[in-house]
Amino acid sequence: MKRIGIADTTFARVDMAAAARRALGATGSGYRLYRRTVPGIKDLPSACQQLFREERVELTLALGMPGRAEYDRTCAHEASLGLQQVALAEGRPILECFVFESEASTDRELEQLARRRAEEHAENAWNLLFRPRALARRAGGGLRQGFADAGPVRPG
Amino acid sequence: MKRIGIADTTFARVDMAAAARRALGATGSGYRLYRRTVPGIKDLPSACQQLFREERVELTLALGMPGRAEYDRTCAHEASLGLQQVALAEGRPILECFVFESEASTDRELEQLARRRAEEHAENAWNLLFRPRALARRAGGGLRQGFADAGPVRPG
Amino acid sequence: MKRIGIADTTFARVDMAAAARRALGATGSGYRLYRRTVPGIKDLPSACQQLFREERVELTLALGMPGRAEYDRTCAHEASLGLQQVALAEGRPILECFVFESEASTDRELEQLARRRAEEHAENAWNLLFRPRALARRAGGGLRQGFADAGPVRPG
Amino acid sequence: MKRIGIADTTFARVDMAAAARRALGATGSGYRLYRRTVPGIKDLPSACQQLFREERVELTLALGMPGRAEYDRTCAHEASLGLQQVALAEGRPILECFVFESEASTDRELEQLARRRAEEHAENAWNLLFRPRALARRAGGGLRQGFADAGPVRPG
Amino acid sequence: MKRIGIADTTFARVDMAAAARRALGATGSGYRLYRRTVPGIKDLPSACQQLFREERVELTLALGMPGRAEYDRTCAHEASLGLQQVALAEGRPILECFVFESEASTDRELEQLARRRAEEHAENAWNLLFRPRALARRAGGGLRQGFADAGPVRPG
Repeated sequence: MKRIGIADTTFARVDMAAAARRALGATGSGYRLYRRTVPGIKDLPSACQQLFREERVELTLALGMPGRAEYDRTCAHEASLGLQQVALAEGRPILECFVFESEASTDRELEQLARRRAEEHAENAWNLLFRPRALARRAGGGLRQGFADAGPVRPG
Repeated sequence: MKRIGIADTTFARVDMAAAARRALGATGSGYRLYRRTVPGIKDLPSACQQLFREERVELTLALGMPGRAEYDRTCAHEASLGLQQVALAEGRPILECFVFESEASTDRELEQLARRRAEEHAENAWNLLFRPRALARRAGGGLRQGFADAGPVRPG
Repeated sequence: MKRIGIADTTFARVDMAAAARRALGATGSGYRLYRRTVPGIKDLPSACQQLFREERVELTLALGMPGRAEYDRTCAHEASLGLQQVALAEGRPILECFVFESEASTDRELEQLARRRAEEHAENAWNLLFRPRALARRAGGGLRQGFADAGPVRPG
Repeated sequence: MKRIGIADTTFARVDMAAAARRALGATGSGYRLYRRTVPGIKDLPSACQQLFREERVELTLALGMPGRAEYDRTCAHEASLGLQQVALAEGRPILECFVFESEASTDRELEQLARRRAEEHAENAWNLLFRPRALARRAGGGLRQGFADAGPVRPG
Repeated sequence: MKRIGIADTTFARVDMAAAARRALGATGSGYRLYRRTVPGIKDLPSACQQLFREERVELTLALGMPGRAEYDRTCAHEASLGLQQVALAEGRPILECFVFESEASTDRELEQLARRRAEEHAENAWNLLFRPRALARRAGGGLRQGFADAGPVRPG
């Protein structure tokens, strides 16, 4: 039984954790979920650290939704650096799944984008833990999460 | 009895620590407060480290008010990175509560914003320590501190 | 027998690992390859850490292809900082080989650039491990990877 | 007898260390000064580390004067991150006192600003070590170093 | 006999290590040189780490020449952060000597600037190790490396 962590925020406007949970369930089994909800993305590194230390998860999904302001980009950058620091200090991967509000122009688009990206990162999480060769087979494949894949270059 | 730290600055133009203290008292009990005041936001990481090490607090509120200049944004960024470093090194959360002077156009607005944001982060602090499920129930809820909540998306 | 790691991504649109593998084979022998494929460049630091810790490689090539958006530059910056952190914590070099999609205007150009840069960094990797003096002899030589060399200044 | 460190540079155009030393003497006693002079601000973190480790100081003033170019801002940012890293690793505060050449329009202004800021940070240093409650009493007071204080908001 | 490290790159277009070596010889004696050449500036932190750990040098000169592109500035920033990290982790100074190609408009100017800056930083290195008071005597002196000194302010 592998242990997977999910860290999310009350700042986000979509329940990305629910989408990730469903996608994990549809992808495979053999895991148990642990969760921490914090106010904002800058609190995610601490939440991931707790999931690794207190719940002994092997991988964490960090779900967040930075706002539209310039300052939100700085916050996302700081959060990313913190997530990386935790992943390296704990020697465990964190899959960061951020959706910027500015990536969508309507609430409907935002909801779909956040849901799909969370689903596809959840699938990546499952593959990293249970089927790493599935990723190697798609190396250089131009995969994207939340949007259509770019695909490999067509040099022809 | 849980121990909560508050770090604040002489640079700020509002006594955010007083607002946080009142909000904590209104939210619940079962804690004791410890405080360090330093000159500016870049001194907050050291102050938080002292609160964790010397006062053995379990969580710290870091209250600051960056000025209006471009350079103040850089200072806030540096302070944020330092706060994150301390939180991760100590294995304890720091709730950063910064109010940029440029977020308000009058002294009156600035005072209200700083007070409300400090109050709402104080409430978050109490929930993180005493009632973490209260946060999980509001995941994806589009909560904001100091301003009106954005709320969850309405995909309809 | 030296151990060399290759970390790459499913986000990239070119199979840079294949190009690096061929170039290593053409440059010399005496090594064995180990590989990790992850979703995106921000996952490369964790992958490199695993290669150092689990496969005991002595050097890792980190291959990635950031997209065209402004945000992709931030991601590349964060990935670079993480790669450096891993290299220093493990006391082993990581040769970062990133190709920005925006460096090329057609798929054909992108494919060639990615292939050549991966090849030339693979050659650097081999030299660092087996023939470090070859690099010292070319110090100040204005070498470039993927594009034509700038060459040394001609002060005449 | 407390030990205070002063780190400064040959790049600066004003002898800020002399100003800090005079201000410390005027503020109080009970301390001894230790000093390291390095070429530029990016060398200050190493100098502070030496002061903490070799001279066992309890706090260091880091005095620097970044130039007018865009690049100098980047250097100041890097220096700040390094100073923070040292302060946290040593568990001791560093008061950063930087004066940007671009903050003043004449040599005369620059000299006054650098002198006053160094003096006021020296006073902060003394208070942090000997009279921390003096800072707490002025929390939220809108204090500035080198320029006139902004003062607390007047919400009336 | 003190040990000094020199780390340089094949990316640079001038042999700055040769200039540094000559300047050290002209400044004084009592030292022995150790060298590592790597592909680019982002590889310098690893090279410096090796010089400290494998050659037990007491100080390292890190010589590099970032290119003209916007991205090269980001690389220089990342390299600087890495150099600082190594210096602090090893508890030894690294004198960073970077010359941006964009600082000069002709090959001739670039060659002169790179040579002079390397020479003057080599002199600083020697002073830091053998004659630290020489630096303290010039604190606040407005010294520059590679260009004419700015000199101290003339408040008159």
